[in-house]
Amino acid sequence: MSKVVLAFSGGLDTSWCVPYLHEQGYEVVTVTVDTGFTPDELAQIEAQSRALGAAEHITVDAKQAFFDEVLRYLIAGNVRKGGVYPLCVGAERAIQARESARVAKELGANAIAHGSTAAGNDQIRFEVVLRTLAPDLKLLSPIRDLGPKRPEQVADLEAKGLPIPGFGAAYSVNAGLWGVTIGGTETKTSAGILPEAAWVRTAGALDAPKPARTLNLGFEQGIPVALDGQPMDPVALIETLDALAASYGIGRGMHLGETILGIKGRVAFEAPAATVILSAHQELEKLVLTGGQLTTKDTLAAIYGDYVHRGLWTDPLCRSIEAFFRDVQTRVTGTVTVELAPGRCFVAGCDSPFSLMNASRGEYGEAIGEWTPADAIGFSRIFSLPSELSARAGRGK
Amino acid sequence: MSKVVLAFSGGLDTSWCVPYLHEQGYEVVTVTVDTGFTPDELAQIEAQSRALGAAEHITVDAKQAFFDEVLRYLIAGNVRKGGVYPLCVGAERAIQARESARVAKELGANAIAHGSTAAGNDQIRFEVVLRTLAPDLKLLSPIRDLGPKRPEQVADLEAKGLPIPGFGAAYSVNAGLWGVTIGGTETKTSAGILPEAAWVRTAGALDAPKPARTLNLGFEQGIPVALDGQPMDPVALIETLDALAASYGIGRGMHLGETILGIKGRVAFEAPAATVILSAHQELEKLVLTGGQLTTKDTLAAIYGDYVHRGLWTDPLCRSIEAFFRDVQTRVTGTVTVELAPGRCFVAGCDSPFSLMNASRGEYGEAIGEWTPADAIGFSRIFSLPSELSARAGRGK
Amino acid sequence: MSKVVLAFSGGLDTSWCVPYLHEQGYEVVTVTVDTGFTPDELAQIEAQSRALGAAEHITVDAKQAFFDEVLRYLIAGNVRKGGVYPLCVGAERAIQARESARVAKELGANAIAHGSTAAGNDQIRFEVVLRTLAPDLKLLSPIRDLGPKRPEQVADLEAKGLPIPGFGAAYSVNAGLWGVTIGGTETKTSAGILPEAAWVRTAGALDAPKPARTLNLGFEQGIPVALDGQPMDPVALIETLDALAASYGIGRGMHLGETILGIKGRVAFEAPAATVILSAHQELEKLVLTGGQLTTKDTLAAIYGDYVHRGLWTDPLCRSIEAFFRDVQTRVTGTVTVELAPGRCFVAGCDSPFSLMNASRGEYGEAIGEWTPADAIGFSRIFSLPSELSARAGRGK
Amino acid sequence: MSKVVLAFSGGLDTSWCVPYLHEQGYEVVTVTVDTGFTPDELAQIEAQSRALGAAEHITVDAKQAFFDEVLRYLIAGNVRKGGVYPLCVGAERAIQARESARVAKELGANAIAHGSTAAGNDQIRFEVVLRTLAPDLKLLSPIRDLGPKRPEQVADLEAKGLPIPGFGAAYSVNAGLWGVTIGGTETKTSAGILPEAAWVRTAGALDAPKPARTLNLGFEQGIPVALDGQPMDPVALIETLDALAASYGIGRGMHLGETILGIKGRVAFEAPAATVILSAHQELEKLVLTGGQLTTKDTLAAIYGDYVHRGLWTDPLCRSIEAFFRDVQTRVTGTVTVELAPGRCFVAGCDSPFSLMNASRGEYGEAIGEWTPADAIGFSRIFSLPSELSARAGRGK
Repeated sequence: MSKVVLAFSGGLDTSWCVPYLHEQGYEVVTVTVDTGFTPDELAQIEAQSRALGAAEHITVDAKQAFFDEVLRYLIAGNVRKGGVYPLCVGAERAIQARESARVAKELGANAIAHGSTAAGNDQIRFEVVLRTLAPDLKLLSPIRDLGPKRPEQVADLEAKGLPIPGFGAAYSVNAGLWGVTIGGTETKTSAGILPEAAWVRTAGALDAPKPARTLNLGFEQGIPVALDGQPMDPVALIETLDALAASYGIGRGMHLGETILGIKGRVAFEAPAATVILSAHQELEKLVLTGGQLTTKDTLAAIYGDYVHRGLWTDPLCRSIEAFFRDVQTRVTGTVTVELAPGRCFVAGCDSPFSLMNASRGEYGEAIGEWTPADAIGFSRIFSLPSELSARAGRGK
Repeated sequence: MSKVVLAFSGGLDTSWCVPYLHEQGYEVVTVTVDTGFTPDELAQIEAQSRALGAAEHITVDAKQAFFDEVLRYLIAGNVRKGGVYPLCVGAERAIQARESARVAKELGANAIAHGSTAAGNDQIRFEVVLRTLAPDLKLLSPIRDLGPKRPEQVADLEAKGLPIPGFGAAYSVNAGLWGVTIGGTETKTSAGILPEAAWVRTAGALDAPKPARTLNLGFEQGIPVALDGQPMDPVALIETLDALAASYGIGRGMHLGETILGIKGRVAFEAPAATVILSAHQELEKLVLTGGQLTTKDTLAAIYGDYVHRGLWTDPLCRSIEAFFRDVQTRVTGTVTVELAPGRCFVAGCDSPFSLMNASRGEYGEAIGEWTPADAIGFSRIFSLPSELSARAGRGK
Repeated sequence: MSKVVLAFSGGLDTSWCVPYLHEQGYEVVTVTVDTGFTPDELAQIEAQSRALGAAEHITVDAKQAFFDEVLRYLIAGNVRKGGVYPLCVGAERAIQARESARVAKELGANAIAHGSTAAGNDQIRFEVVLRTLAPDLKLLSPIRDLGPKRPEQVADLEAKGLPIPGFGAAYSVNAGLWGVTIGGTETKTSAGILPEAAWVRTAGALDAPKPARTLNLGFEQGIPVALDGQPMDPVALIETLDALAASYGIGRGMHLGETILGIKGRVAFEAPAATVILSAHQELEKLVLTGGQLTTKDTLAAIYGDYVHRGLWTDPLCRSIEAFFRDVQTRVTGTVTVELAPGRCFVAGCDSPFSLMNASRGEYGEAIGEWTPADAIGFSRIFSLPSELSARAGRGK
Repeated sequence: MSKVVLAFSGGLDTSWCVPYLHEQGYEVVTVTVDTGFTPDELAQIEAQSRALGAAEHITVDAKQAFFDEVLRYLIAGNVRKGGVYPLCVGAERAIQARESARVAKELGANAIAHGSTAAGNDQIRFEVVLRTLAPDLKLLSPIRDLGPKRPEQVADLEAKGLPIPGFGAAYSVNAGLWGVTIGGTETKTSAGILPEAAWVRTAGALDAPKPARTLNLGFEQGIPVALDGQPMDPVALIETLDALAASYGIGRGMHLGETILGIKGRVAFEAPAATVILSAHQELEKLVLTGGQLTTKDTLAAIYGDYVHRGLWTDPLCRSIEAFFRDVQTRVTGTVTVELAPGRCFVAGCDSPFSLMNASRGEYGEAIGEWTPADAIGFSRIFSLPSELSARAGRGK
């Protein structure tokens, strides 16, 4: 009997796939790659799989891999699509597909399946990675290809006496280690505003006054490693910080951007930890990296973020950019002070043993320790030349 | 008698220059180029000039020129240095130097002087523009070249019976149309936090609770033209919005970045209106511009912001980038809804007659109006190829 | 009766389409958009159309439009894909599709057809433009969709007593104003070398010795306008120069690059005029543009070239880049001296009324007219700071 | 007695420095860092040093270091300034300054001196590196600071009975491993053409006919390692290839570009080996790297080339770019076939075990092995969307 590994979230689409794939003659193994579920969610997903009659259910704990192979580079690049959105969702898919492919190969499966629809980015993200890493497996995407409507799916499951997962919620939510995305009526237009109750991690957080709080975030080589002086591994740190920052309603936003499919898409997001970490990390970089490093990093980060967003994480370009990022992060070590208040994350200051401010004998705008007035004249004279020659040559403004 | 035009702010440095230049044999004309002073400030500056015995004082209203020739392009580029700082100060210098040069030529002056020190960016910014636009005038910078200490300056003025301007304030403040910068003890280190009282436009604004407020900001071809539906010219709009947003404590930040002189510098800033306008403008662009336009704009905006920051506004490159910006802004027309709350500016939504979301028959993630499942398969298959071929050729991850 | 406009080259594929489309119930109008055919070729194409029984044949002279709307910008950008290939073919498709769409609308056609196969770039280039500019017309691509084999096509035409165009040549050639591309056995691998006889415009040109020749090429605002002092309109200049440079075997190359479809493709090309013009233009720019203009131009040119190559010329980004290019070319006026010798185009020198070399009082490496030794010390000291501070802060090399 | 290390080329300027520094109370150690001198030149330099009475002369063989730390990255980046010039000179300075600093520290010297003038780039290149790597040594630049005229220098040496090196040649030549630069009367203007006799490595090479020759160049991880199948270490390979390619007159050019000092500069160059290696390397990359890798490499290479040119090789940014380059070169392994003929280097083809062309089942433009016609339709439909939506939303062309 042929075996299929199904990337399984426990929702209506992937639930419907279990009996469908079985009917196609497959032994169905469901795989849930954990890049930020809660233990409860994982238990429910497993129970749903068993109730649907899957031959086997496998949970892969990939949070550490997610951090080590994706998030640390998104942090290194201060990646926020459109200046705001920390790539909460797209970043998970690469690891989820990679791990699903690994399991499928280990189990000697003949096929691998995902439950993405024809309307969104995830079909592409899954398929680029699966085609790249598991080219010998048959690739199935029943929801995308057949497009069963929700009522049909429910009817099918009911007819077979199978459990119907919670669905039909007003909002479609994806929650992971790096944040939550929320889609619904309001995000189908560019002007819609999500109602307060629809927020997942920050609902109500802005309603009651709450005193501001200072937080010290420690980094080592670009990786967040300590909260208020207490060392933590990055995954635990993100989880802890996320709860704390969410309680201040930090990290909400609306993201309107390019989909992989040529149209615009809009989504609400909550990324409390990501917002704090990215803001703090970026400040520390300004202290320890040269101007050239910062500018070039930004260029590469835009490309890296775009590749991850578009599911192209397996392109070897990403490996080369990661090599750049690892090198450039070697001195991004130090502590950043952040003020958390309702709806607001204010980066107050930072320090580092590699501080380029401390390395200077002068003080900007105050004291000239590195040059004399005559040096400044010389610099000014030469620095002006391109503009000056251009004016002489006939134009100027 | 030789005539010198002195770019005059009325502070201790430029006040000291008036008698100094007179002693060097010059008839001194003070020029104050208004890129965002209050009427009171302008009156005080003029009074100070007269009291110092300047032969003439000229005030140039350059707010409209500042908007038309600089700010509209900073908005077009969504320029925020280091991801946060809207170039409040550097942007003013280009216009101030340009207008000073114009006045000097009109008056038939022989020399032009500025009061910048050897320690900061402004000496460079003034001099690039002055060398470029007024190459025939002698360029004087007595403060930079002689480096008189503050007590010496005070003693000099006292000895001559001349008025000493307010100085010695704990913080050095530069206030203009696009925002305020504040330097002082805390900004000389990377970790210092400005005390609440040191903020200029937002001091105390975060202390008392204040109900959130929704604001509609209208743009036409990338230019802010309406507040809550009421048409306003851009300068008035910025002034009105600045007061409103400041009352919510919006737009505060610390900026740590490259100076023109090779060292790092840090400064506190308040840019209430700029923060709201830039956030809103950027959102509207996401709705009406293609992905390629957005990405390319970002690249050019980083260059443009860097040039303006470094005083290179007269390089003809800036004119070419402005031509790009004007073209790309032709459809950045529409309305953006922003929520203002203490310390927070939340972009809630936007709409435009040129909306690329409305132009689509599909709905991202919901309905496929532009393609069929088969189209998506084809796209996915071809889109995967570079990654897939690369894996086949030997690498992959 | 429905009417279809068929973009017609007179080759086997588009010839086969004429009766095919007629059988589908269409009145077939063939349109040949001339972006560099010879008069003989145009006459043959028209004759072929009539012999195939097309209802009407229309020839559109688009050489001037091709120059004004595409080539002048490829020149402005010094666009050579992969550093070598002047985009000979891809650039023509945009104008050909645009003009075909225009004619179709003017004739009130119901459909528009092209004869591109499923294997190459042209299907995409045609369709992006046609979908964009003629969204209301039915879009037909019978060769791509049905994939008739060449023997079947011949048999079909023979059975109907229709003329079979010359085909089955060892090499597939596309010749236009900006150059020729040649594909065949050798270009299907990365190592194959085109035999001498397969070259179209330069075959044998390198065999016999031929004395070198000096050529003066005049530009005005970035546009080539004179050959050896004789004013010519750009299209005529390109044609004249192409014949001359081809006689020296100039402009041959092999291009290995990305196709739009995710795989690599390779093609031989001959671009005699383009090679000379681009080399000369680039040199003149170095004389009159600032370093910042040159660097930024290169960035935009890479994007523009990529968009034109991928058939995305109708993306509004291209219009914005063109606005930048027009501005930046305003001073690219002057004369460039080029030496032509067999297989070699050597840019010997140039001059311009806007020369930035002439504008300088100093001479690089020889005389310091713009600064003093003390100025150079000051510049050196400040210019070194980022590297120096970085070493102090802990790293260095 | 204080000790100074003088970076010594044996020319008039550095010769004059030896007695001058001695008179300033220094024991003078001359150091010549060999990045491509001939043995004869090195012997002459040493003899000159001894005759001038230097306390010690040290020759540092840095050709391998020059390749390993600079040239391999210039090759990785296909760096040619202005599209033509392989950075023959600037690239040597970093290693020369670094090695001079190392020797100075090892000898316990108190000072380090260079003989660059105030007019050129080298003063900056030397000083950035020396300030960065030897901040505790006094930095001396007597020629730049005192600006002795050539006749004065000659008179000074004559008066002291010291040997006067050959000088006053019509052309100033810098010859190294990566090429030769030549400056003189003709390069002081933008239009001057170097006379045939002034070329150093290729003079006369184009005069006599010479049969073309095919060459196979082997690369391993981006490094040239074999000539016509014969393994060679990179330094020896460059030397051998340079002589061969020079005999065909390959690699000549005129470079007009930005100096570090704000003005334009022009120089003639001969880079026979560099020209062949860079052309071949770039072709091989096109075969094995994805489109994204190629595009991003180009961006970084422009920055890297600019940093090396401007003497900023010690900025840590260069280390990060080198990390990217090392990663991206891991598959740049294979053989490139090049045709050498008088004045012409034609890249005829290449092959690699990591070929992305071989990895594809389809053949561009010929056979569709990777997709079906239906896939191509789907791709085309989705790929067109941004342009299409933009037209719908109101613009289009």
